[in-house]
Amino acid sequence: MWPGRLATLPWRWAGGMALALGLVLLAARGWRRRRRRRAPRREVLFFPSPLTCTAALLGEPGPAPCLCPLPPGDSPLGRLLRRLLSARRSLELCLFAFSSPQLGRAVQLLHRRGVRVRLLTDADYMALPGSQIGRLRQAGIQVRHDQESGYMHHKFAIVDKKMLITGSLNWTTQAIQNNRENVLIVEDAEYVEPFLAEFERIWEEYNPANYIFFPK
Amino acid sequence: MWPGRLATLPWRWAGGMALALGLVLLAARGWRRRRRRRAPRREVLFFPSPLTCTAALLGEPGPAPCLCPLPPGDSPLGRLLRRLLSARRSLELCLFAFSSPQLGRAVQLLHRRGVRVRLLTDADYMALPGSQIGRLRQAGIQVRHDQESGYMHHKFAIVDKKMLITGSLNWTTQAIQNNRENVLIVEDAEYVEPFLAEFERIWEEYNPANYIFFPK
Repeated sequence: MWPGRLATLPWRWAGGMALALGLVLLAARGWRRRRRRRAPRREVLFFPSPLTCTAALLGEPGPAPCLCPLPPGDSPLGRLLRRLLSARRSLELCLFAFSSPQLGRAVQLLHRRGVRVRLLTDADYMALPGSQIGRLRQAGIQVRHDQESGYMHHKFAIVDKKMLITGSLNWTTQAIQNNRENVLIVEDAEYVEPFLAEFERIWEEYNPANYIFFPK
Repeated sequence: MWPGRLATLPWRWAGGMALALGLVLLAARGWRRRRRRRAPRREVLFFPSPLTCTAALLGEPGPAPCLCPLPPGDSPLGRLLRRLLSARRSLELCLFAFSSPQLGRAVQLLHRRGVRVRLLTDADYMALPGSQIGRLRQAGIQVRHDQESGYMHHKFAIVDKKMLITGSLNWTTQAIQNNRENVLIVEDAEYVEPFLAEFERIWEEYNPANYIFFPK
């Protein structure tokens, strides 16, 4: 009834299009499944960490060749820095003591990149010599602290609300270089979600509006 | 050819036996599968813990009714004690500071039940007033300690080589009752095995044969 070309070409196109669409859908389904199935990261770091050069990681290459006197290579500190620096959107920090200059530079770098950084810390330790808290505040990072007699003794970080970094390690050079310490890298929701909820609970509780240093 | 009873009975028995055997094998397979499939325990405890009566848990019911003045009920400390007291064969302890009398009693109870307890601790903290280390040694529990300038700052326990208990919590009453702390209960092999290896590494390193307090 139709001329030959008109009758056959659209059907060939439609068939080809349907085949291509089917292949695309199949590929997308496989990709989604693979993504769902990607095993959660489960990693342990033990300290003390041997001294290694972290300048390149921190985007501080300096004049080439690198002038850092420390040996290059992998180390627990280097791996901790890499996990932290993978943050793209948010970083929650809940740290008893924070004086490591390298970890401080990593947090400032993330803040400059536009990652939303929030920091909870302990009032007794935040003003000690060498503490990073003042520098981070000066850089514009939001910090809240306790006003309790007990210590805010947590030592955890949450990257992009998906990866928990927690353990015995205070973020100090003493702990990183001299102590026996552990850090767990965790993506299982059974751990990440309670820690996120704990962070938000303490964040609200330590809201400066609740401070009672100056009774009315 | 055979008399009726002789010809039929053994075949009936054999058929019944085969059916029974088949059912037993099926049940065993199902049980093994269920055992394999039991999801690893993943639990988080946050402190401070409200005061609760732990006497019953510690096998100290005393004269009925219980004379403990604390309220009964669930608490992070109660759950930590229950996990510890589930040990049947072995308990590795790697603890910076250990002064909680309740946790000390739990460890002594396990030792009396025949669980093999080994304890690694920090030399600077083990002799402080209130430390449990002396009592545990007197009870016959093996203890080894560092002789380093850095701290042995781990705070973990491994139950029956299968369950890791780790976090920010030092085993002190101050930490349990007053601090913000976390404890993870973990059964994933990716965490348990490196911690076991770390324990064995430190256990060998802290062997008293290696002490150099008294140079030759």
